[in-house]
Amino acid sequence: MKADKFTLLRHFDGAPQEADFALETEELPELKPGEFLCEAEFLSVDPYMRPYTRQMKPPFTMIGTQVARVLESKSDKFPVGSRVVGALGWRSRTVVSEDMPTAQFGMRPCTGLGELPLSYALGSCGMPGNTAYFGFLEICQPKEGETVVVTGAAGAVGSLVGQIAQIRGCRVVGFAGTDAKCDWLKSLGFDAAINYKTCEDIDSALKAAVPKGIDCYFDNVGGLLSHRIRQQMNEFGRVSICGSIASYNDRTGETAQVDVPENQILFKQLKVEGFIVTRWDKEGTWQKGIDQMAAWIREGKIKVQETVTEGFQNMPKAFIGMLKGENTGKAVVKATVE
Amino acid sequence: MKADKFTLLRHFDGAPQEADFALETEELPELKPGEFLCEAEFLSVDPYMRPYTRQMKPPFTMIGTQVARVLESKSDKFPVGSRVVGALGWRSRTVVSEDMPTAQFGMRPCTGLGELPLSYALGSCGMPGNTAYFGFLEICQPKEGETVVVTGAAGAVGSLVGQIAQIRGCRVVGFAGTDAKCDWLKSLGFDAAINYKTCEDIDSALKAAVPKGIDCYFDNVGGLLSHRIRQQMNEFGRVSICGSIASYNDRTGETAQVDVPENQILFKQLKVEGFIVTRWDKEGTWQKGIDQMAAWIREGKIKVQETVTEGFQNMPKAFIGMLKGENTGKAVVKATVE
Repeated sequence: MKADKFTLLRHFDGAPQEADFALETEELPELKPGEFLCEAEFLSVDPYMRPYTRQMKPPFTMIGTQVARVLESKSDKFPVGSRVVGALGWRSRTVVSEDMPTAQFGMRPCTGLGELPLSYALGSCGMPGNTAYFGFLEICQPKEGETVVVTGAAGAVGSLVGQIAQIRGCRVVGFAGTDAKCDWLKSLGFDAAINYKTCEDIDSALKAAVPKGIDCYFDNVGGLLSHRIRQQMNEFGRVSICGSIASYNDRTGETAQVDVPENQILFKQLKVEGFIVTRWDKEGTWQKGIDQMAAWIREGKIKVQETVTEGFQNMPKAFIGMLKGENTGKAVVKATVE
Repeated sequence: MKADKFTLLRHFDGAPQEADFALETEELPELKPGEFLCEAEFLSVDPYMRPYTRQMKPPFTMIGTQVARVLESKSDKFPVGSRVVGALGWRSRTVVSEDMPTAQFGMRPCTGLGELPLSYALGSCGMPGNTAYFGFLEICQPKEGETVVVTGAAGAVGSLVGQIAQIRGCRVVGFAGTDAKCDWLKSLGFDAAINYKTCEDIDSALKAAVPKGIDCYFDNVGGLLSHRIRQQMNEFGRVSICGSIASYNDRTGETAQVDVPENQILFKQLKVEGFIVTRWDKEGTWQKGIDQMAAWIREGKIKVQETVTEGFQNMPKAFIGMLKGENTGKAVVKATVE
């Protein structure tokens, strides 16, 4: 049995390029007891991949999570036909040991989705869903009637945060990079949406959108836009830093500069906290988030949008496009065209 | 009865200059019922005065707190000879109403010092003491065995924070601006002290001083030094932003630039919180901090240093010198030469 995989040849320098990846084929070994062979159905492309690869030493198989179906099995725990969600990398087929750790996005059975699409296990009912659920509710501690601002609002996480904020009775303002995304955000019930790429006076547009100031800021982007948003925060405001995508594509050795942040954090007595969602990857806690997200989706309180790229061979294209903001909602790759 | 006072003539532009102030004399009114006349004994110069005056409209009597003795009184609450701590500004004598609010540094009787010097009411047993006590313990939540870094470590607040951290069983590293200050910090029991002005490789010096990384950072300065310190923080580190003195003297309209801060806050999952000490100015809470600081001083667990400038007329000089870091410990002005 053969498998396709993408190898990352070198560190990205600036925006990722297709030439940074090599599509390779390898022969898979025979299964040993306790192992199974699975085939990717959906693969995830996420912003975190850009900074995380910086800590690794190329060449290596590109990192990432997928929903895969078990094709052959010598494991009672993972029978043929069952599905797993696992950090198996950008691979079309993989031989996996049933003992692979489940924590830290190792691997777990793909359960609890019911009638919801399988791909949701990579988005609203997976890591990005819990990122929105815990990262917003636990860190921002939003109260009814407060004002919430979200950047990257039309992305996988941001679009969920904005909808969770509405469920909690907050006013929600989103930033996104196209008018179409802003229209979509308003259709989701956002009170206002600002196109940060075309808006000529972001400070004034934001001021008009948040008449009572900002209590919670869910930050996916960092950099200058975040600085300007923090300027309009209320005393004792909370900032949840989920991502810093505006600077992920800085060239090696270059770092964007912004005004010193301490003055605004100090004089407004802001609480600014960064988080990685694995902190909630504890017995019971993780699944609680997934279950709540799935329930809200079934109740129609949260709408899910995906941008699906067809074909495993298009993984780099999907990843590069996602970092450019070409996706609306969760960016996923469907491994095979049906 | 006449009073001297300093009027701030204009907003500071860059470092404060003596010419920004005017020393004026005024005739005080007769006392009405409920009023008293008090005379400054010690006056405080503090970093917060630099940014706070930016929000006000000159000319106005310069802001600040003093310990004053009641000379005449038509108030039963404040009899002749008693002492008050009040935000009476840079004034040698003041007519005060007994109804002046006590919260937010309005005015309160100067009590509880016992045999300790009166001037401590402006420092270790006053606002700076509580800034250290609550701002460090409540926001950094230090645990025994953790490593704490303090900037502005030889200042009024920093020197107290470092000693409180020792009481809590932490390793403490301080940054200060002269070798003499660093020697003093080591004499206070700091595990290491770094002269940020002369150290040629701050990153390496800090690395050597914090073999287990940094868990808590009490930030008095902000800017580039804070950025470099955050680089060496451990996962789930806590930063308490008390001041941002490195940028207080930025010229009007200019702001120092630093690397975008979100990446380091995110990937280390730091919690960064700014505070103004008035948040603990609630019934009972404020006095609890003062009482604990006084107790530690009496027990010899906290040593207090003051830099005393003689003469009310030297208020501007003391303030300008303090912002330049000429003081060790708390900078105060003794109103009259004995």
